[in-house]
Formats: sequence, C-alpha cells, structure tokens
Amino acid sequence: MPKTAIYPGSFDPVTNGHIDLITRAARIFDKVIVAVAHNYHKKPIFTTPERVKMLKETTKGIKGVTVESFEGLVIEYAHTKKVNVLIRGLRMISDFEYEFQMALTNRRLAQDIETVFLMPSESYAFLSSTLLKEAAALGADVSQFVPKSVEKPLKERLRR
Amino acid sequence: MPKTAIYPGSFDPVTNGHIDLITRAARIFDKVIVAVAHNYHKKPIFTTPERVKMLKETTKGIKGVTVESFEGLVIEYAHTKKVNVLIRGLRMISDFEYEFQMALTNRRLAQDIETVFLMPSESYAFLSSTLLKEAAALGADVSQFVPKSVEKPLKERLRR
Amino acid sequence: MPKTAIYPGSFDPVTNGHIDLITRAARIFDKVIVAVAHNYHKKPIFTTPERVKMLKETTKGIKGVTVESFEGLVIEYAHTKKVNVLIRGLRMISDFEYEFQMALTNRRLAQDIETVFLMPSESYAFLSSTLLKEAAALGADVSQFVPKSVEKPLKERLRR
Amino acid sequence: MPKTAIYPGSFDPVTNGHIDLITRAARIFDKVIVAVAHNYHKKPIFTTPERVKMLKETTKGIKGVTVESFEGLVIEYAHTKKVNVLIRGLRMISDFEYEFQMALTNRRLAQDIETVFLMPSESYAFLSSTLLKEAAALGADVSQFVPKSVEKPLKERLRR
Amino acid sequence: MPKTAIYPGSFDPVTNGHIDLITRAARIFDKVIVAVAHNYHKKPIFTTPERVKMLKETTKGIKGVTVESFEGLVIEYAHTKKVNVLIRGLRMISDFEYEFQMALTNRRLAQDIETVFLMPSESYAFLSSTLLKEAAALGADVSQFVPKSVEKPLKERLRR
Amino acid sequence: MPKTAIYPGSFDPVTNGHIDLITRAARIFDKVIVAVAHNYHKKPIFTTPERVKMLKETTKGIKGVTVESFEGLVIEYAHTKKVNVLIRGLRMISDFEYEFQMALTNRRLAQDIETVFLMPSESYAFLSSTLLKEAAALGADVSQFVPKSVEKPLKERLRR
Repeated sequence: MPKTAIYPGSFDPVTNGHIDLITRAARIFDKVIVAVAHNYHKKPIFTTPERVKMLKETTKGIKGVTVESFEGLVIEYAHTKKVNVLIRGLRMISDFEYEFQMALTNRRLAQDIETVFLMPSESYAFLSSTLLKEAAALGADVSQFVPKSVEKPLKERLRR
Repeated sequence: MPKTAIYPGSFDPVTNGHIDLITRAARIFDKVIVAVAHNYHKKPIFTTPERVKMLKETTKGIKGVTVESFEGLVIEYAHTKKVNVLIRGLRMISDFEYEFQMALTNRRLAQDIETVFLMPSESYAFLSSTLLKEAAALGADVSQFVPKSVEKPLKERLRR
Repeated sequence: MPKTAIYPGSFDPVTNGHIDLITRAARIFDKVIVAVAHNYHKKPIFTTPERVKMLKETTKGIKGVTVESFEGLVIEYAHTKKVNVLIRGLRMISDFEYEFQMALTNRRLAQDIETVFLMPSESYAFLSSTLLKEAAALGADVSQFVPKSVEKPLKERLRR
Repeated sequence: MPKTAIYPGSFDPVTNGHIDLITRAARIFDKVIVAVAHNYHKKPIFTTPERVKMLKETTKGIKGVTVESFEGLVIEYAHTKKVNVLIRGLRMISDFEYEFQMALTNRRLAQDIETVFLMPSESYAFLSSTLLKEAAALGADVSQFVPKSVEKPLKERLRR
Repeated sequence: MPKTAIYPGSFDPVTNGHIDLITRAARIFDKVIVAVAHNYHKKPIFTTPERVKMLKETTKGIKGVTVESFEGLVIEYAHTKKVNVLIRGLRMISDFEYEFQMALTNRRLAQDIETVFLMPSESYAFLSSTLLKEAAALGADVSQFVPKSVEKPLKERLRR
Repeated sequence: MPKTAIYPGSFDPVTNGHIDLITRAARIFDKVIVAVAHNYHKKPIFTTPERVKMLKETTKGIKGVTVESFEGLVIEYAHTKKVNVLIRGLRMISDFEYEFQMALTNRRLAQDIETVFLMPSESYAFLSSTLLKEAAALGADVSQFVPKSVEKPLKERLRR
C-alpha cells in the first residue's frame, strides 16, 4: 500500500523553502498531498485558487505530488483523505514551539494522526515568509527566494 | 499571617491549564486571588464579568481561592491588596521570555513585589489559548482542554 | 516496496519514551530498524548486546520492528542497509539544536539520506536519560519511566 | 579612512537601551549613523521627524553620532551612504531569531554588507518597547526606562 | 502554620546570585531551608561542610533562613522535613530546560511536592558558576560575583 | 588610527566556519588578531603552536589578519595589546547563551572592552567542532568542513 503524507500550509506564496521540503517529502513518501489551507480569518496576498495554481506549476516535476485545498481542521481533512501522516518543516526555535503546540493539539484531537518534521536545506533555514513579503514590498529583488513563476505576481500584488 | 498570592491573567476563557495552576498555587499559598485583567486594548471573546463568573464556577471547589477583576497595572492592584507575590505559569520558551520581561519590568516598577513561576502539568504544557480558540472556531471538540461549563459558551461565541 | 526507516541511538537503557517513539514510527513506516550505536568512546551502563537484548524484549509486540547494533557512522550503516530515512525524537530545545546539527552534518556527508523527527508523547517529553540514571542511582523508584524488564537490571547496575 | 556603521531601527521612542547601545557602538566605530526607519506599514506613536528629533537631543553628547531617517530597504540606504556595517542589539532569544533572519536576508540581498551585533547592558536586556508602551499607557512611571526628554511626550501621546 | 520552602543546590561556592535568590525566597516564605547537596559523583571544589559553613556565614543576616546538607533524592529529603515546596532560580533558557526536566521528574516521583521558580536580579542573570570558576582560576578578580568571605578561599582553592 | 579587533578561540582545529568569520571580521576592522587560547585545563587535539601554525597557513591570504597565542584571561590579553574589541561568532541558541554569559562576565571584569558578534555564513551555521571531530574519528570525509591543510593532520590525530 503506498504511503501517503499531507503537507498542510498557507503557502502565501510558495517559496523555494517549501519546494525544498516537498522534494524531500516526496523522497520519503510515495504520495505527498500539498494541502493549501483556505483559512478564513487571515488576509492572504493570494486567493486559495491562486496559491493552488502556483503550487501545481512549481511542483509538477516532483513525482508523487498533488496539490489540493482544504477548509476546517487539518485532522478532519486527513481523516477524509484516509491519511495518517502530516508533514511540517522546522526551521528555527520559534517554529519549533509553535509546531509542537499545533502537533500536540492535533494529536489530542486525533490520536491516529502523526506529525513528522523535516528539515529544510540550511539555505532556506532562515527564510521567513513575513520578512520575504516585507522585503518584496520595499522593492527588494526576491528572485533567489521564490520560484520564477511566483516572482512577478508577488511583486505586482505587493506594489498595489 | 496567611500568605496570599495574586494570579493575574486574561483568562479568555479559563482553561484546564489555568485550573491546574490555580490548584497548585493553592497548595503553596494560604490565599490565591485570581485576578482577571480588564485589559482595554485587546478584544476578548468574553467580557470581564463573564470571565470572572466562569472562573468562580470552575474554582469554587479549590480552598483559599477568590476571583476578582482589576484595571491598570497589576503591581498597583497588588499594592492595593497588600499582596507581594504574583504567580505566573511557565509552559514554553516563548512564555519564558515574555514572562521574564514582564516580571523584570514589574520588579523595576515595584521592588517589593516578587513574581514566582509554577509549572503546569505536562498534560497542559502545550496548551495555547490562541490555538485552542482557532481549533474551536474550526469546529474542533475542545472538551478535553476547557472546563465543562466553558465548553458550550466558547463554542457559541466563536461560531457567531 | 516497503518503506524502511532506521532509528539510531544509544538506548542505554531503553526508556518508555523510546518505546513510545518506536510505536509511532512503526505506524508510519513498514519497517523500523532500531539501531544500537556501539559507540566506542562513551562508557555505557549496559553493553551493546545487553542493550540490543533489552530492546528486542520490549519491542517484540510492535509490528515491523527489528533491533540491530552498528559501529561507525550511521549514514554508512544506512547505506549498507539501503535505507534512506533516519528517525529521531525531538523533546526540547536543546534536543532540537543538537539534532539539527547532527542531521545537517549527516546530510552534508550523505545527500541521499533524510532525517525525520517525531514527537514523543508529552508524558515523556521531559524524560532525560541522564536525570533518569541520576535519580535511579540515588535510589528513586523509576518504574514509571522504563519498561518493566529494564527496571531491575538498571537498579542493580547503578547500585554497584 | 574612518570606520562608519549604521544603526537602523524604528526608535518609537528611543529608550535608555538604545542610548546604551549607541554609546557602545560609538566606542567601536568612528562614525555611527542612527537611521530611523520611515516604515510605511506600521503605526508608530511618534512621527519620523519627531523620532529623529528625540534621538538627536538624546545622543548629542556622544561623539561621532549622527541621526537620519530613511525609506525602503536598509541595504539600499547603506549602499547610498557607502557604509558596509549594520549594527543591531541582541537582548533575548526571540531577538536573536528575528535578527538573524533579517541579517541573513540582508546578506543575501547585499553580500557586501555585514551585520554586527552588540549586547546592551544587562540593565536593559529585558527592556521591551512593547511592554514599555503598555506599562506607560496604564499609567506606570517609566522614567527609568526612557531619556528624560522622552518621558513627557510618551505619556501625553499614550494618554490621548 | 509557617510556610517553609527548601532551596536545594550544590553551592560550590555560594555566589551573590544565590544570596539574591535566598533573600527573595525569604520574603515570600516564613522559613527557607538552604539545602546543600552532598552529591557523591561530582568533584566539588569545597567539601560539603565547607559549603554549609560559607552559606551559614553569608546568610546569617537573612530572617528565617537555615542551612543544612542532605544526601540522596531531594524529594525524600523534603518528605523528611515535611516541606512541600522546592525553590529554584531561573536565569536563562538552558536553565529553564534543565530545571523543568528536573522539576517534572521530581513531580512524577512525588506528586505532593511543588517546585517554584524565582528570578534573580538581572545583575546576576548571566552569572554562571562554571564561568566564574574558570575566570577565578585564570586569576580574575571575582570580588563582585561572590560574597567577601568566599573570595579568598575560592582563590586559594583554584590556585592549588 | 587603525581599528583592531581580537578574535579569541581554541581553534582546535580551525574550520571553514572560522575562516568565514575571520574573512568577515577583516572586512569590518583594519586589523584582526586571531588569538589562540593556550587553555591549560582542556585536552586539545593539537598543541597551541600547531593550532597557530594551521591558522597562519589558512589565513595568510586575508588582509590585516595576524595570528598569536595567549594565556590567561582574554581581557588582560586585550589590555596588553591595547585593543578594546573582541569578536565572537554566533551560530545557534546554545552559542548565544554561552557567548552572552562570557561577554557579560568579561564586561564586568573590564568595562572598556566590547564584544561584537558576527554571523557565519548559513553554510557553517550548523558546524559544531565536537560533531566534526566525532564524525572524523568515525572515518567520515570532513573535507568540506575544514581547510585542505587541516584535513590530513586531523585524520591522523584522531585515528591514533
């Protein structure tokens, strides 16, 4: 039976750090579902369909990867997909704490689902999407941080 | 002379982690005043009287505990109550830093008041009220994280 | 093809925290090889064969788990076994840093091998084998921290 | 050739911790440019000209220090000034992470610019401008945390 | 009934940071027992009686403080003394983790005993006894870090 | 007057991370004295003259850099050299704490000396000399972590 894992996130937008992590996950699991959270209470830069489209374009070369969006609790979404593994990236201490809180809360809510943590390449370990957007908004050339197809729409969106 | 300590917080709403800490504090000090901050610049889910009421209900079995609300600086409130001990819970690193900053700031403002830190049970060490509210808002069953009497009002309030 | 992962460690001795992690790993991977490091420069309490034997006894009920020992670099051992996934547990911040350093060093030495991190149950998140041994050496009852079959030999060994 | 360094920040308002750091920087570098970020997306308490004025008043006794404001990316501002050293203060772990992310992002954007970190006096190591403003807003006497000339305008502004 | 707390440690030797903490503890509790661990497996600079003597001399002015030594588990010692509160100081992140592990292990071994954490003055927050001894061994003047009566014996002992 | 800074350390042996830091320091300061600590109480792999020689060889291309050894307190050495700036690298949280403790202790012992922290390249941020030596001792190819001239002697020394 193929092993499937879900990599949930907001991906607003997808960065090279995400692509790095998806590539690593795809080497471990047979199928990786990248799951874009349609989170109602934050104001994303890109709409859910836009984020899904960007991810599809930038991950199409990685074997076993599909992209979807979901609403509500990630554990309920995992139950629906009959998947018992969630993937998260760990970059820094503050990640660590938030991720652990979330993973332990999820475990309490659904004992059958396990969260596994992967390390991004150290080239992306410092990459914060908040800083990325701030820098892009101030006119920085962020071509080394995001996939080529994301660069232009990000710039346009932030310059509005 | 009975030893009294103040446990200040926003308690929006009270969680099982808070109850655990209050129970521990009550074993150390003769009297524990749970002090609900009427903080004007955050938007709580529950009003100050609602939070006080919930705390009173859920702590009425714990000997030596009273519940009040206060406005302004906690050190001035402590002076008014003639109490020189504040209690705070420490769960994680980020808590640690924020709590230390606050305690040192309070110490600078009032040299006579000491902050003591207690550890919650490891069952609640990961419990973040922000994550709790997010999960509840997405429809999660949070019955294991909050007292029974809080569960229903929390669900109703977040579903509005 | 079955997915195999290696869980390397010194397991001196195996604790309930290790058993918890092995159980979780076995739910994610088809095969889990628990690999006892025959580390020449530390002075373990138990010999390598003793540690292997203890692990075999305490994991025999967990499906897909085998126990072996290895010498030298874990990445070379993984290459020999044709396994590309290492498993490590993450409990606290200090773990996090050491584990990341080790995982990044391993990645540099062997690009094909990925380290995945799992979270133990919060009941074991604080369990430090150093503290465990110190407490046991001072006569503490450590029956809740180690498997039943480990308790007696640990006591005997530390009391020498 | 005199060594020049830029100390960028929002300085909203300047605290004794900032003054401590500027004093230390001025002992290491021949010239220190304190650069007030005219950050368009946060809501500062004081306007950029007000913050520049406060800094000028409170640093006028420190040899080699000038005060300016800048817009946009700090690395572009540094390029304009032909300065290759940025100074930042490090107080706590959370600072550390944010500062490192920012410094590494800046390094990626401008390889020629180096960030150096200085430690404030331990008397100011806990001083958070957020807590400072919260305390001041609640009526605390913050005279020991900010320069004398800042105290009154801070109180007036927060009491509005 | 007077509230008593035990402050256990190795105190090898007592520093100004310890004195600061004992002073704070004595303001909160009616009686504070400073308990010197006669730890058999570390090599202290000073013998247990020497450490007890130094503590007695340097704390004799603080009301309610007594000094003793103990062997074995601190929780068993606390049971013997019929005390249910342990005091520990928290200075930094690494303290935090070690202290939490120890406190949670103690809680597991003795549910009736609570550990409370106090913050030293920020003047001592950085004071590491390891660094102190290293500096003293290299000839540094450590008079500002240790009580006057400790200074000379420390110098003599390290210079041997 | 040329600005001089001292970069003290044990450099046992010099790694690519050290070279990276020295290169950055040399861009900020006119002169950088790399100061090898002749630390009497640790057992280095290489003797002090060996470590000085390795550093001289690997830094000879970097303008303004000299290599020396020193005994005793680094602040006294700095006073002898009439230098008021120490340089240290910061890689991770555990570094951060230790380095801050050391820097604050040094500041207390010598108010005139300032420690500045630099960030290594993220390629070296994870590089721990302890892990490096462990890996090399187990036969790992560490050519990407140390200068070419260090590789062979390190291997020989650890294989003894």
